[in-house]
Amino acid sequence: MTIRIGILGYGNLGRGVEAAIKQNDDLTLTGVYTRRDPATLRIATDGVPVRSQAELEAGVDDIDVLVICGGSATDLPVMTPKFAKMYNVIDSFDTHANIPAHFANVDAAAKASGKVGIISAGWDPGMFSLNRVYADAILPCGRAYTFWGKGVSQGHSDAIRRIEGVLDARQYTIPVEAALDAVRSGANPELTTRQKHTRECFVVAADGADKAAIERAIVTMPNYFADYDTTVHFISMEEMKRDHSGLPHGGSVIHSGTTSDGVNQVIEYRLTLDSNPEFTGSVLAACARAAYRMNAEGISGAKTLLDIAPAYLSAKTGDDLRAHYL
Amino acid sequence: MTIRIGILGYGNLGRGVEAAIKQNDDLTLTGVYTRRDPATLRIATDGVPVRSQAELEAGVDDIDVLVICGGSATDLPVMTPKFAKMYNVIDSFDTHANIPAHFANVDAAAKASGKVGIISAGWDPGMFSLNRVYADAILPCGRAYTFWGKGVSQGHSDAIRRIEGVLDARQYTIPVEAALDAVRSGANPELTTRQKHTRECFVVAADGADKAAIERAIVTMPNYFADYDTTVHFISMEEMKRDHSGLPHGGSVIHSGTTSDGVNQVIEYRLTLDSNPEFTGSVLAACARAAYRMNAEGISGAKTLLDIAPAYLSAKTGDDLRAHYL
Repeated sequence: MTIRIGILGYGNLGRGVEAAIKQNDDLTLTGVYTRRDPATLRIATDGVPVRSQAELEAGVDDIDVLVICGGSATDLPVMTPKFAKMYNVIDSFDTHANIPAHFANVDAAAKASGKVGIISAGWDPGMFSLNRVYADAILPCGRAYTFWGKGVSQGHSDAIRRIEGVLDARQYTIPVEAALDAVRSGANPELTTRQKHTRECFVVAADGADKAAIERAIVTMPNYFADYDTTVHFISMEEMKRDHSGLPHGGSVIHSGTTSDGVNQVIEYRLTLDSNPEFTGSVLAACARAAYRMNAEGISGAKTLLDIAPAYLSAKTGDDLRAHYL
Repeated sequence: MTIRIGILGYGNLGRGVEAAIKQNDDLTLTGVYTRRDPATLRIATDGVPVRSQAELEAGVDDIDVLVICGGSATDLPVMTPKFAKMYNVIDSFDTHANIPAHFANVDAAAKASGKVGIISAGWDPGMFSLNRVYADAILPCGRAYTFWGKGVSQGHSDAIRRIEGVLDARQYTIPVEAALDAVRSGANPELTTRQKHTRECFVVAADGADKAAIERAIVTMPNYFADYDTTVHFISMEEMKRDHSGLPHGGSVIHSGTTSDGVNQVIEYRLTLDSNPEFTGSVLAACARAAYRMNAEGISGAKTLLDIAPAYLSAKTGDDLRAHYL
């Protein structure tokens, strides 16, 4: 018997979850659900049906866990509570400020249905959150720093694309090595936004566009770029496709604390990811396993990775983990 | 109300737990227990009684969790099951091969008494184990490498001290940078024991001792040194005390895997510790909090960090964690 997974939404993240399911023998993809016309969608797994979201709403019986791959701005706040009334669900809700409200909504729905809803899974929120909590629990007299990159920020890339004369853009967030080194040394430095990260932009401009104006619009853009040292490179569409089609990302959570006078202890968790959506999809797949198991034990309600005993995420037995991983 | 902690055994680790309790407002040290004559022991916390192990065996009523700071070779296999019959207990049992048997013994005792026994807490086993399990659950098509150091190996230091003519010794385990770099690159190299770590020894020889013979005895010692590139430095007792009195340690768990063809994802968890026993003591203190809370919910039996939802380890509430750490 394997755990039957449905995927709702087939963008980069949905495809990442699909790839992860293929790597786990105890998970089976039983359906991909979409708001589009199912006939227009071709997926990477042979023999698995593509169905409409309407079917999911009507109720399907071959899903143990539904992985919801929608956007945090408008999709997930509606979808996750809605489907938690019918299924065990997983999402990657990442609007940090709205997590408490989203948790409460999913918790109410999942408790009413007797299902488990794991929200905000992925790497930040997700594995980075876990590491912030573990480190703070072990070293309460300490301080955590989160660095992102080098990696593609899709929000910042989108912001550049909205500038007039821009055909395409890719923005890389890059941590400042000197800041990383200072934090790793245990010095607990005060760091401004500008001292922690730089931003590098690759832009394809339309023929005849005013490149100087585009560059000025980028580097002075409030919230997105004004507080950072930003560099802008104009490239051709061919170069964009050839050199910048991946979605690498990663970063570090570094917690530096003392356990007694002058005794420094530094914990670092670092991710170097060729593909952000495939890694996130892999975390969601492991959470689907945990949701199924927890629900099978009678647990219900909203959960985050902070509420999940690590062994639930692993396909291996407790005996195996104790013998070979502990 | 705070959680009342007893410490059994007042060596380096017991003092590390005591230091950690001082940093956590929700934990209170209510007693240190010893096999020695309690009158001979002076501890670092004012107003806390030092009592005999015999009192603990007779039963004391001001302990919510007993942290057992004994050795893995002979102390813990006896002590942890014995005291799990009376108290929630924590240990740092680190003989990897014997963990399954130790777990079974503690589980039987703790289930019979309705208490929780958390075994093998610390950093390896402990936080490193957690990271091996998380990484394997997320990236099942991957491979984990554990590197230790730079840090003092007490077992190897003791082995040198047993050589004739040696007055004192300190052995540092050092990871090979080229091996670390190869693993971090995602290349999944095959590495021999010699390629992963080197060993550096600082030795105080007795007057007139045969230093060449001592060095030969060290570098050819089976299991401990023969499979490594080992360097030996002879120093004075003054230099030993001045430069090598700390117990720094640390290391990295690096898991490198693919999520689809050619897509590499690398996870690294790294510790850089000024004091091995104080860090281990801090992990044990957080586990004491978790044991108390789990037991208050009616949970009993043996647990490892793999069985503990991370939020149990934190003094902060779920709401606080979701709002500020997720």
